[in-house]
Amino acid sequence: MNFTEKLAGAVEKNRSLLCVGLDTDPALIPANLSIFEFNRAIIDATADLVCAYKPNIAFYESLGSSGLDALKRTREYIPPEIPVIIDAKRGDIGNTARAYARGLFEYFNFDAVTASPYLGYDSQEPFIEYADRGIFVLCRTSNAGAVDFQSLFCEVEDGTKPLYEVVAAKVNGWNTRGNLGLVVGATYPEELQQIRREYPEMPLLIPGVGAQGGELSQVVRYGVDAKRQRTIINSSRQILYASKGKDYAAAARRAAQELRDSINQFLTAI
Amino acid sequence: MNFTEKLAGAVEKNRSLLCVGLDTDPALIPANLSIFEFNRAIIDATADLVCAYKPNIAFYESLGSSGLDALKRTREYIPPEIPVIIDAKRGDIGNTARAYARGLFEYFNFDAVTASPYLGYDSQEPFIEYADRGIFVLCRTSNAGAVDFQSLFCEVEDGTKPLYEVVAAKVNGWNTRGNLGLVVGATYPEELQQIRREYPEMPLLIPGVGAQGGELSQVVRYGVDAKRQRTIINSSRQILYASKGKDYAAAARRAAQELRDSINQFLTAI
Repeated sequence: MNFTEKLAGAVEKNRSLLCVGLDTDPALIPANLSIFEFNRAIIDATADLVCAYKPNIAFYESLGSSGLDALKRTREYIPPEIPVIIDAKRGDIGNTARAYARGLFEYFNFDAVTASPYLGYDSQEPFIEYADRGIFVLCRTSNAGAVDFQSLFCEVEDGTKPLYEVVAAKVNGWNTRGNLGLVVGATYPEELQQIRREYPEMPLLIPGVGAQGGELSQVVRYGVDAKRQRTIINSSRQILYASKGKDYAAAARRAAQELRDSINQFLTAI
Repeated sequence: MNFTEKLAGAVEKNRSLLCVGLDTDPALIPANLSIFEFNRAIIDATADLVCAYKPNIAFYESLGSSGLDALKRTREYIPPEIPVIIDAKRGDIGNTARAYARGLFEYFNFDAVTASPYLGYDSQEPFIEYADRGIFVLCRTSNAGAVDFQSLFCEVEDGTKPLYEVVAAKVNGWNTRGNLGLVVGATYPEELQQIRREYPEMPLLIPGVGAQGGELSQVVRYGVDAKRQRTIINSSRQILYASKGKDYAAAARRAAQELRDSINQFLTAI
Protein backbone atom coordinates (compact mmCIF):
# COMPACT_ATOMS: atom_id res chain seq x y z
CA MET A 1 0.00 0.00 0.00
CA ASN A 2 1.46 3.35 -0.98
CA PHE A 3 1.06 6.68 0.79
CA THR A 4 -1.94 8.02 -1.13
CA GLU A 5 -3.80 4.73 -0.62
CA LYS A 6 -3.05 4.75 3.08
CA LEU A 7 -4.15 8.39 3.28
CA ALA A 8 -7.37 7.61 1.42
CA GLY A 9 -8.08 4.79 3.85
CA ALA A 10 -7.77 7.08 6.86
CA VAL A 11 -9.80 9.83 5.17
CA GLU A 12 -12.63 7.38 4.53
CA LYS A 13 -12.53 5.62 7.89
CA ASN A 14 -12.54 8.81 9.95
CA ARG A 15 -14.43 10.96 7.43
CA SER A 16 -11.72 13.53 7.92
CA LEU A 17 -9.30 15.76 6.05
CA LEU A 18 -7.89 17.00 9.35
CA CYS A 19 -4.26 16.43 10.26
CA VAL A 20 -3.11 17.11 13.80
CA GLY A 21 0.34 18.66 14.03
CA LEU A 22 2.22 17.15 16.97
CA ASP A 23 4.41 20.21 17.57
CA THR A 24 4.81 19.40 21.22
CA ASP A 25 6.59 22.12 23.15
CA PRO A 26 7.66 21.23 26.71
CA ALA A 27 6.99 24.84 27.77
CA LEU A 28 3.33 24.59 26.75
CA ILE A 29 2.25 21.21 28.13
CA PRO A 30 1.22 20.31 31.70
CA ALA A 31 4.36 20.22 33.84
CA ASN A 32 3.91 16.67 35.14
CA LEU A 33 3.86 15.09 31.67
CA SER A 34 6.64 13.91 29.39
CA ILE A 35 6.50 14.75 25.69
CA PHE A 36 5.52 11.17 24.92
CA GLU A 37 2.83 11.03 27.60
CA PHE A 38 1.30 14.24 26.26
CA ASN A 39 1.40 12.96 22.68
CA ARG A 40 -0.10 9.63 23.72
CA ALA A 41 -3.04 11.37 25.34
CA ILE A 42 -3.55 13.60 22.28
CA ILE A 43 -3.44 10.56 19.99
CA ASP A 44 -5.86 8.62 22.18
CA ALA A 45 -8.20 11.62 22.10
CA THR A 46 -8.07 12.25 18.35
CA ALA A 47 -7.15 9.06 16.45
CA ASP A 48 -10.73 8.55 15.22
CA LEU A 49 -10.95 12.15 13.97
CA VAL A 50 -7.89 12.60 11.77
CA CYS A 51 -6.57 11.56 8.37
CA ALA A 52 -2.94 11.98 9.46
CA TYR A 53 -0.58 13.17 12.16
CA LYS A 54 2.29 15.54 11.47
CA PRO A 55 5.01 15.95 14.10
CA ASN A 56 7.47 18.74 13.34
CA ILE A 57 10.90 17.28 14.08
CA ALA A 58 12.29 20.65 15.27
CA PHE A 59 10.45 20.36 18.58
CA TYR A 60 11.98 16.94 19.25
CA GLU A 61 15.47 17.65 17.89
CA SER A 62 15.70 20.73 20.11
CA LEU A 63 15.72 18.39 23.12
CA GLY A 64 18.54 16.25 21.80
CA SER A 65 18.53 12.47 22.03
CA SER A 66 15.66 12.31 24.55
CA GLY A 67 13.52 14.26 22.08
CA LEU A 68 14.24 11.80 19.27
CA ASP A 69 13.36 8.94 21.60
CA ALA A 70 10.03 10.63 22.36
CA LEU A 71 9.48 11.08 18.62
CA LYS A 72 10.15 7.41 17.92
CA ARG A 73 7.83 6.26 20.70
CA THR A 74 5.16 8.67 19.45
CA ARG A 75 5.43 7.35 15.91
CA GLU A 76 5.17 3.77 17.14
CA TYR A 77 2.13 4.59 19.24
CA ILE A 78 0.08 6.01 16.37
CA PRO A 79 -2.39 3.40 15.04
CA PRO A 80 -0.90 1.77 11.93
CA GLU A 81 -3.78 2.79 9.65
CA ILE A 82 -3.14 6.52 10.23
CA PRO A 83 -0.32 7.95 8.09
CA VAL A 84 2.35 9.98 9.85
CA ILE A 85 4.01 12.85 8.01
CA ILE A 86 7.27 14.06 9.50
CA ASP A 87 7.56 17.80 8.99
CA ALA A 88 11.30 18.14 8.48
CA LYS A 89 11.65 20.42 5.41
CA ARG A 90 14.88 18.63 4.52
CA GLY A 91 16.91 19.43 1.43
CA ASP A 92 20.56 18.51 0.99
CA ILE A 93 22.93 17.07 -1.63
CA GLY A 94 22.54 13.47 -2.76
CA ASN A 95 24.58 11.43 -0.28
CA THR A 96 23.31 13.54 2.62
CA ALA A 97 19.72 13.41 1.42
CA ARG A 98 20.10 9.62 1.38
CA ALA A 99 21.09 9.72 5.05
CA TYR A 100 18.02 11.83 5.85
CA ALA A 101 15.75 9.49 3.88
CA ARG A 102 17.20 6.44 5.59
CA GLY A 103 16.68 8.00 9.01
CA LEU A 104 13.15 9.30 8.45
CA PHE A 105 11.78 6.41 6.36
CA GLU A 106 13.70 3.44 7.81
CA TYR A 107 14.80 4.22 11.38
CA PHE A 108 11.65 6.19 12.24
CA ASN A 109 9.38 4.57 9.62
CA PHE A 110 7.43 7.73 8.77
CA ASP A 111 4.93 7.47 5.94
CA ALA A 112 5.78 10.83 4.40
CA VAL A 113 8.15 13.77 4.75
CA THR A 114 8.17 17.45 3.92
CA ALA A 115 11.12 18.61 1.80
CA SER A 116 12.57 21.93 0.70
CA PRO A 117 13.11 22.47 -3.04
CA TYR A 118 16.05 24.93 -3.11
CA LEU A 119 18.68 22.30 -4.03
CA GLY A 120 16.68 20.86 -6.92
CA TYR A 121 15.90 17.38 -8.15
CA ASP A 122 18.88 15.41 -6.87
CA SER A 123 18.08 16.58 -3.32
CA GLN A 124 14.60 15.04 -3.63
CA GLU A 125 15.50 11.86 -5.49
CA PRO A 126 16.64 9.81 -2.46
CA PHE A 127 13.20 10.38 -0.90
CA ILE A 128 11.31 9.76 -4.16
CA GLU A 129 13.04 6.39 -4.52
CA TYR A 130 10.94 5.13 -1.61
CA ALA A 131 7.92 4.54 -3.85
CA ASP A 132 5.58 3.66 -0.98
CA ARG A 133 6.28 6.88 0.94
CA GLY A 134 5.04 10.40 0.31
CA ILE A 135 7.08 13.58 -0.21
CA PHE A 136 5.48 17.00 0.23
CA VAL A 137 7.69 19.65 -1.33
CA LEU A 138 7.41 23.21 -0.02
CA CYS A 139 5.66 25.31 -2.63
CA ARG A 140 3.91 28.28 -1.01
CA THR A 141 4.55 28.38 2.72
CA SER A 142 2.16 29.90 5.26
CA ASN A 143 4.51 32.49 6.80
CA ALA A 144 4.88 36.20 6.04
CA GLY A 145 8.44 35.76 4.70
CA ALA A 146 7.11 33.42 2.00
CA VAL A 147 6.95 36.44 -0.31
CA ASP A 148 10.71 37.12 -0.07
CA PHE A 149 11.63 34.49 -2.64
CA GLN A 150 8.53 32.41 -3.46
CA SER A 151 6.79 35.40 -5.09
CA LEU A 152 9.68 36.38 -7.35
CA PHE A 153 8.71 36.24 -11.00
CA CYS A 154 11.04 33.87 -12.82
CA GLU A 155 11.78 33.54 -16.51
CA VAL A 156 10.59 30.19 -17.84
CA GLU A 157 10.03 28.86 -21.36
CA ASP A 158 6.52 30.21 -21.68
CA GLY A 159 6.99 33.63 -20.09
CA THR A 160 7.35 34.44 -16.41
CA LYS A 161 5.77 32.98 -13.33
CA PRO A 162 6.32 33.17 -9.60
CA LEU A 163 8.91 30.84 -8.12
CA TYR A 164 6.34 28.81 -6.18
CA GLU A 165 4.56 28.01 -9.45
CA VAL A 166 7.82 26.97 -11.06
CA VAL A 167 8.38 24.68 -8.07
CA ALA A 168 4.89 23.19 -8.45
CA ALA A 169 5.43 22.54 -12.16
CA LYS A 170 8.84 20.93 -11.60
CA VAL A 171 7.51 18.73 -8.80
CA ASN A 172 4.64 17.67 -11.04
CA GLY A 173 7.17 16.76 -13.71
CA TRP A 174 9.23 14.73 -11.22
CA ASN A 175 6.17 12.78 -10.07
CA THR A 176 6.71 9.63 -12.13
CA ARG A 177 6.10 7.38 -9.11
CA GLY A 178 3.00 9.22 -7.95
CA ASN A 179 4.39 9.87 -4.48
CA LEU A 180 4.92 13.64 -4.59
CA GLY A 181 2.73 16.34 -3.15
CA LEU A 182 2.99 20.04 -2.33
CA VAL A 183 2.84 22.19 0.78
CA VAL A 184 0.61 25.23 0.22
CA GLY A 185 -0.21 27.48 3.16
CA ALA A 186 -3.79 28.26 4.17
CA THR A 187 -2.80 31.90 4.56
CA TYR A 188 -2.48 32.41 0.79
CA PRO A 189 -5.93 31.34 -0.51
CA GLU A 190 -5.55 32.72 -4.04
CA GLU A 191 -2.31 30.86 -4.56
CA LEU A 192 -3.90 27.73 -3.10
CA GLN A 193 -6.82 28.01 -5.52
CA GLN A 194 -4.53 28.39 -8.48
CA ILE A 195 -2.28 25.47 -7.52
CA ARG A 196 -5.31 23.23 -6.96
CA ARG A 197 -6.79 24.21 -10.34
CA GLU A 198 -3.59 23.28 -12.11
CA TYR A 199 -3.04 20.04 -10.19
CA PRO A 200 -6.47 18.66 -9.32
CA GLU A 201 -5.17 15.27 -8.14
CA MET A 202 -1.92 16.28 -6.42
CA PRO A 203 -1.85 15.65 -2.66
CA LEU A 204 -1.70 19.01 -0.89
CA LEU A 205 -0.61 19.50 2.68
CA ILE A 206 -2.13 22.75 3.91
CA PRO A 207 -0.80 24.22 7.15
CA GLY A 208 -1.77 27.57 8.59
CA VAL A 209 -5.40 27.37 9.71
CA GLY A 210 -6.04 28.40 13.31
CA ALA A 211 -3.10 30.07 15.08
CA GLN A 212 -1.63 31.26 11.79
CA GLY A 213 -4.89 32.81 10.62
CA GLY A 214 -5.90 30.84 7.53
CA GLU A 215 -9.64 30.99 6.81
CA LEU A 216 -11.09 27.47 6.88
CA SER A 217 -14.00 27.95 4.48
CA GLN A 218 -11.67 29.30 1.79
CA VAL A 219 -9.15 26.55 2.39
CA VAL A 220 -11.81 23.89 1.85
CA ARG A 221 -13.38 25.56 -1.17
CA TYR A 222 -10.11 26.40 -2.90
CA GLY A 223 -7.94 23.52 -1.77
CA VAL A 224 -10.01 20.36 -2.04
CA ASP A 225 -9.06 17.80 -4.68
CA ALA A 226 -11.33 16.05 -7.12
CA LYS A 227 -11.44 12.84 -5.07
CA ARG A 228 -11.67 14.62 -1.70
CA GLN A 229 -8.95 12.29 -0.47
CA ARG A 230 -5.75 14.22 -1.07
CA THR A 231 -6.21 17.43 0.85
CA ILE A 232 -4.62 17.44 4.27
CA ILE A 233 -5.59 20.39 6.43
CA ASN A 234 -3.22 20.71 9.34
CA SER A 235 -3.80 22.32 12.70
CA SER A 236 -1.28 22.14 15.52
CA ARG A 237 -1.44 24.71 18.32
CA GLN A 238 -5.22 25.22 18.12
CA ILE A 239 -5.69 21.55 19.04
CA LEU A 240 -2.70 20.68 21.23
CA TYR A 241 -3.12 23.70 23.45
CA ALA A 242 -6.90 24.07 23.35
CA SER A 243 -6.68 23.92 27.14
CA LYS A 244 -3.62 24.28 29.29
CA GLY A 245 -5.35 22.60 32.23
CA LYS A 246 -5.86 18.98 33.19
CA ASP A 247 -8.61 18.70 30.59
CA TYR A 248 -6.13 19.23 27.74
CA ALA A 249 -6.93 15.91 26.05
CA ALA A 250 -10.71 16.37 26.17
CA ALA A 251 -10.27 19.95 24.96
CA ALA A 252 -8.04 18.74 22.13
CA ARG A 253 -10.71 16.24 21.14
CA ARG A 254 -13.39 18.91 21.10
CA ALA A 255 -11.21 21.25 19.03
CA ALA A 256 -10.31 18.47 16.58
CA GLN A 257 -13.94 17.37 16.26
CA GLU A 258 -15.10 20.93 15.61
CA LEU A 259 -12.45 21.42 12.95
CA ARG A 260 -13.13 18.09 11.26
CA ASP A 261 -16.88 18.73 11.26
CA SER A 262 -16.46 22.29 9.98
CA ILE A 263 -14.34 21.00 7.12
CA ASN A 264 -17.00 18.40 6.30
CA GLN A 265 -19.75 21.01 6.42
CA PHE A 266 -17.86 23.28 4.08
CA LEU A 267 -17.35 20.27 1.78
CA THR A 268 -21.09 19.67 1.54
CA ALA A 269 -21.56 23.31 0.52
CA ILE A 270 -19.36 23.13 -2.58
CA MET B 1 33.61 36.87 21.04
CA ASN B 2 31.39 36.49 18.00
CA PHE B 3 31.59 33.89 15.26
CA THR B 4 33.78 35.81 12.80
CA GLU B 5 36.24 36.65 15.57
CA LYS B 6 36.40 33.04 16.69
CA LEU B 7 36.86 31.93 13.09
CA ALA B 8 39.64 34.49 12.55
CA GLY B 9 41.40 33.20 15.67
CA ALA B 10 41.39 29.62 14.40
CA VAL B 11 42.45 30.72 10.90
CA GLU B 12 45.45 32.56 12.35
CA LYS B 13 46.44 29.94 14.92
CA ASN B 14 46.36 27.03 12.46
CA ARG B 15 47.22 29.07 9.34
CA SER B 16 44.28 27.35 7.72
CA LEU B 17 41.13 27.99 5.70
CA LEU B 18 40.35 24.28 5.75
CA CYS B 19 37.18 22.96 7.38
CA VAL B 20 36.82 19.25 7.95
CA GLY B 21 33.29 17.96 7.37
CA LEU B 22 32.44 15.35 10.00
CA ASP B 23 29.97 13.45 7.81
CA THR B 24 30.58 10.22 9.61
CA ASP B 25 28.85 7.26 7.99
CA PRO B 26 28.83 4.01 10.01
CA ALA B 27 29.08 2.03 6.75
CA LEU B 28 32.39 3.70 5.87
CA ILE B 29 34.34 3.64 9.13
CA PRO B 30 36.31 0.75 10.69
CA ALA B 31 33.83 -1.77 12.08
CA ASN B 32 35.18 -1.81 15.63
CA LEU B 33 34.68 1.93 16.18
CA SER B 34 31.69 3.93 17.33
CA ILE B 35 30.83 7.17 15.54
CA PHE B 36 32.20 9.15 18.46
CA GLU B 37 35.43 7.16 18.65
CA PHE B 38 36.03 7.70 14.94
CA ASN B 39 35.31 11.43 15.21
CA ARG B 40 37.56 11.74 18.26
CA ALA B 41 40.45 10.19 16.36
CA ILE B 42 39.84 12.46 13.35
CA ILE B 43 39.72 15.53 15.62
CA ASP B 44 42.90 14.49 17.44
CA ALA B 45 44.59 14.06 14.06
CA THR B 46 43.47 17.35 12.51
CA ALA B 47 42.70 19.95 15.22
CA ASP B 48 45.92 21.89 14.52
CA LEU B 49 45.21 21.97 10.78
CA VAL B 50 41.69 23.37 10.49
CA CYS B 51 39.81 26.64 10.89
CA ALA B 52 36.53 24.85 11.64
CA TYR B 53 34.69 21.55 11.79
CA LYS B 54 31.37 20.98 10.06
CA PRO B 55 29.31 17.91 11.03
CA ASN B 56 26.29 17.34 8.80
CA ILE B 57 23.45 16.50 11.16
CA ALA B 58 21.83 14.11 8.65
CA PHE B 59 24.41 11.42 9.36
CA TYR B 60 23.68 11.57 13.11
CA GLU B 61 19.91 12.02 12.90
CA SER B 62 19.68 8.96 10.65
CA LEU B 63 20.78 6.85 13.64
CA GLY B 64 18.14 8.26 15.96
CA SER B 65 18.87 9.21 19.54
CA SER B 66 22.23 7.40 19.68
CA GLY B 67 23.35 9.48 16.71
CA LEU B 68 22.43 12.74 18.44
CA ASP B 69 24.33 11.59 21.53
CA ALA B 70 27.40 10.95 19.36
CA LEU B 71 26.96 14.40 17.82
CA LYS B 72 26.80 16.07 21.23
CA ARG B 73 29.87 14.23 22.49
CA THR B 74 31.71 15.12 19.28
CA ARG B 75 30.83 18.78 19.64
CA GLU B 76 32.00 18.78 23.27
CA TYR B 77 35.26 17.09 22.33
CA ILE B 78 36.29 19.71 19.76
CA PRO B 79 38.80 22.17 21.28
CA PRO B 80 36.93 25.32 22.33
CA GLU B 81 38.97 27.64 20.09
CA ILE B 82 37.85 25.83 16.91
CA PRO B 83 34.41 26.92 15.67
CA VAL B 84 31.90 24.19 14.86
CA ILE B 85 29.37 24.74 12.09
CA ILE B 86 26.40 22.40 12.12
CA ASP B 87 25.35 21.69 8.56
CA ALA B 88 21.60 21.41 8.98
CA LYS B 89 20.14 23.51 6.12
CA ARG B 90 17.17 24.34 8.32
CA GLY B 91 14.35 26.62 7.23
CA ASP B 92 10.93 26.69 8.85
CA ILE B 93 8.30 29.16 10.05
CA GLY B 94 9.04 31.39 13.03
CA ASN B 95 8.00 29.35 16.07
CA THR B 96 9.54 26.20 14.57
CA ALA B 97 12.72 28.00 13.53
CA ARG B 98 13.00 29.14 17.15
CA ALA B 99 12.91 25.49 18.27
CA TYR B 100 15.66 24.63 15.78
CA ALA B 101 17.78 27.60 16.91
CA ARG B 102 17.32 26.66 20.55
CA GLY B 103 18.35 23.08 19.87
CA LEU B 104 21.37 23.83 17.68
CA PHE B 105 22.69 26.91 19.50
CA GLU B 106 21.70 26.12 23.11
CA TYR B 107 21.36 22.36 23.59
CA PHE B 108 24.23 21.50 21.23
CA ASN B 109 26.07 24.85 21.52
CA PHE B 110 27.18 25.01 17.89
CA ASP B 111 28.95 28.18 16.79
CA ALA B 112 27.19 28.43 13.45
CA VAL B 113 24.50 26.79 11.34
CA THR B 114 23.64 26.42 7.69
CA ALA B 115 20.13 27.55 6.74
CA SER B 116 17.89 27.29 3.69
CA PRO B 117 16.40 30.53 2.33
CA TYR B 118 13.15 29.34 0.70
CA LEU B 119 10.88 30.54 3.54
CA GLY B 120 12.36 34.03 3.66
CA TYR B 121 13.42 36.39 6.40
CA ASP B 122 11.22 35.27 9.27
CA SER B 123 12.61 31.73 8.93
CA GLN B 124 16.14 33.11 9.47
CA GLU B 125 15.39 35.68 12.17
CA PRO B 126 15.38 33.27 15.15
CA PHE B 127 18.93 32.24 14.21
CA ILE B 128 20.08 35.81 13.50
CA GLU B 129 18.94 36.88 16.96
CA TYR B 130 21.86 34.91 18.41
CA ALA B 131 24.32 37.71 17.66
CA ASP B 132 27.39 35.69 18.68
CA ARG B 133 26.58 32.78 16.35
CA GLY B 134 27.02 32.52 12.60
CA ILE B 135 24.39 31.67 9.97
CA PHE B 136 25.42 30.49 6.51
CA VAL B 137 22.48 30.75 4.13
CA LEU B 138 22.43 28.48 1.09
CA CYS B 139 23.12 30.58 -1.99
CA ARG B 140 24.66 28.46 -4.75
CA THR B 141 24.91 24.83 -3.70
CA SER B 142 27.53 22.41 -5.02
CA ASN B 143 25.19 19.76 -6.48
CA ALA B 144 24.02 19.27 -10.07
CA GLY B 145 20.38 20.03 -9.17
CA ALA B 146 21.43 23.51 -8.01
CA VAL B 147 20.50 24.77 -11.47
CA ASP B 148 16.85 23.68 -11.17
CA PHE B 149 15.83 26.74 -9.17
CA GLN B 150 18.94 28.69 -8.16
CA SER B 151 19.71 29.59 -11.79
CA LEU B 152 16.25 30.90 -12.62
CA PHE B 153 16.35 34.53 -13.70
CA CYS B 154 14.10 36.54 -11.41
CA GLU B 155 12.60 39.95 -11.90
CA VAL B 156 13.99 42.44 -9.40
CA GLU B 157 13.93 46.23 -9.21
CA ASP B 158 17.00 46.73 -11.38
CA GLY B 159 16.31 44.12 -14.05
CA THR B 160 16.68 40.35 -13.77
CA LYS B 161 19.17 38.21 -11.95
CA PRO B 162 19.49 34.56 -11.01
CA LEU B 163 17.76 33.46 -7.83
CA TYR B 164 21.04 32.71 -6.04
CA GLU B 165 22.11 36.32 -6.57
CA VAL B 166 18.79 37.58 -5.25
CA VAL B 167 19.35 35.39 -2.19
CA ALA B 168 22.86 36.81 -1.71
CA ALA B 169 21.59 40.38 -1.96
CA LYS B 170 18.75 39.74 0.50
CA VAL B 171 21.06 38.04 2.99
CA ASN B 172 23.47 40.96 2.71
CA GLY B 173 20.58 43.31 3.46
CA TRP B 174 19.54 41.24 6.50
CA ASN B 175 23.08 41.30 7.90
CA THR B 176 22.63 44.10 10.43
CA ARG B 177 24.32 42.07 13.17
CA GLY B 178 27.24 40.96 11.04
CA ASN B 179 26.61 37.27 11.68
CA LEU B 180 25.42 36.12 8.25
CA GLY B 181 27.38 34.33 5.58
CA LEU B 182 26.67 32.38 2.40
CA VAL B 183 27.17 28.83 1.17
CA VAL B 184 28.64 28.81 -2.35
CA GLY B 185 29.72 25.52 -3.87
CA ALA B 186 33.25 24.97 -5.18
CA THR B 187 31.77 23.31 -8.24
CA TYR B 188 30.49 26.63 -9.65
CA PRO B 189 33.67 28.77 -9.80
CA GLU B 190 32.23 31.58 -11.93
CA GLU B 191 29.34 32.07 -9.57
CA LEU B 192 31.75 31.95 -6.63
CA GLN B 193 33.92 34.63 -8.21
CA GLN B 194 30.96 36.88 -8.81
CA ILE B 195 29.55 36.50 -5.29
CA ARG B 196 32.96 37.18 -3.76
CA ARG B 197 33.41 40.31 -5.91
CA GLU B 198 30.10 41.68 -4.75
CA TYR B 199 30.59 40.77 -1.09
CA PRO B 200 34.34 40.98 -0.38
CA GLU B 201 33.95 40.69 3.41
CA MET B 202 31.08 38.21 3.68
CA PRO B 203 32.00 34.89 5.27
CA LEU B 204 31.67 32.16 2.63
CA LEU B 205 31.38 28.48 3.36
CA ILE B 206 32.57 26.60 0.29
CA PRO B 207 31.80 22.89 0.08
CA GLY B 208 32.48 20.68 -2.91
CA VAL B 209 36.26 20.32 -3.28
CA GLY B 210 37.54 16.77 -3.46
CA ALA B 211 34.86 14.07 -3.85
CA GLN B 212 32.46 16.53 -5.49
CA GLY B 213 35.05 17.71 -8.02
CA GLY B 214 35.61 21.40 -7.22
CA GLU B 215 39.00 22.67 -8.44
CA LEU B 216 41.00 23.94 -5.45
CA SER B 217 43.14 26.54 -7.23
CA GLN B 218 40.05 28.24 -8.65
CA VAL B 219 38.26 28.07 -5.32
CA VAL B 220 41.13 29.86 -3.60
CA ARG B 221 41.64 32.45 -6.33
CA TYR B 222 37.96 33.23 -6.80
CA GLY B 223 36.66 32.67 -3.30
CA VAL B 224 39.12 34.27 -0.89
CA ASP B 225 38.02 37.35 1.03
CA ALA B 226 39.94 40.58 1.47
CA LYS B 227 41.09 39.65 5.00
CA ARG B 228 41.79 36.00 4.17
CA GLN B 229 39.88 35.09 7.30
CA ARG B 230 36.34 34.52 6.11
CA THR B 231 36.67 31.81 3.50
CA ILE B 232 35.95 28.33 4.77
CA ILE B 233 36.87 25.57 2.35
CA ASN B 234 35.23 22.32 3.37
CA SER B 235 36.30 18.79 2.61
CA SER B 236 34.58 15.76 4.11
CA ARG B 237 34.98 12.39 2.41
CA GLN B 238 38.46 13.08 1.00
CA ILE B 239 39.75 13.43 4.56
CA LEU B 240 37.55 11.12 6.65
CA TYR B 241 37.94 8.19 4.31
CA ALA B 242 41.49 8.82 3.05
CA SER B 243 42.18 5.29 4.24
CA LYS B 244 39.69 2.62 5.18
CA GLY B 245 42.34 0.69 7.11
CA LYS B 246 43.68 0.98 10.64
CA ASP B 247 45.74 3.99 9.58
CA TYR B 248 42.60 6.06 8.91
CA ALA B 249 43.55 8.81 11.38
CA ALA B 250 47.11 9.21 10.09
CA ALA B 251 45.78 9.17 6.53
CA ALA B 252 43.20 11.82 7.44
CA ARG B 253 45.95 13.96 8.90
CA ARG B 254 48.04 13.66 5.74
CA ALA B 255 45.06 14.48 3.53
CA ALA B 256 44.13 17.48 5.69
CA GLN B 257 47.70 18.74 5.79
CA GLU B 258 48.03 18.46 2.02
CA LEU B 259 44.79 20.35 1.49
CA ARG B 260 45.63 23.07 3.99
CA ASP B 261 49.09 23.52 2.51
CA SER B 262 47.79 23.55 -1.06
CA ILE B 263 45.29 26.26 -0.09
CA ASN B 264 48.11 28.29 1.48
CA GLN B 265 50.31 27.85 -1.58
CA PHE B 266 47.54 29.01 -3.87
CA LEU B 267 47.05 32.00 -1.54
CA THR B 268 50.68 33.08 -1.92
CA ALA B 269 50.26 32.97 -5.71
CA ILE B 270 47.46 35.55 -5.83
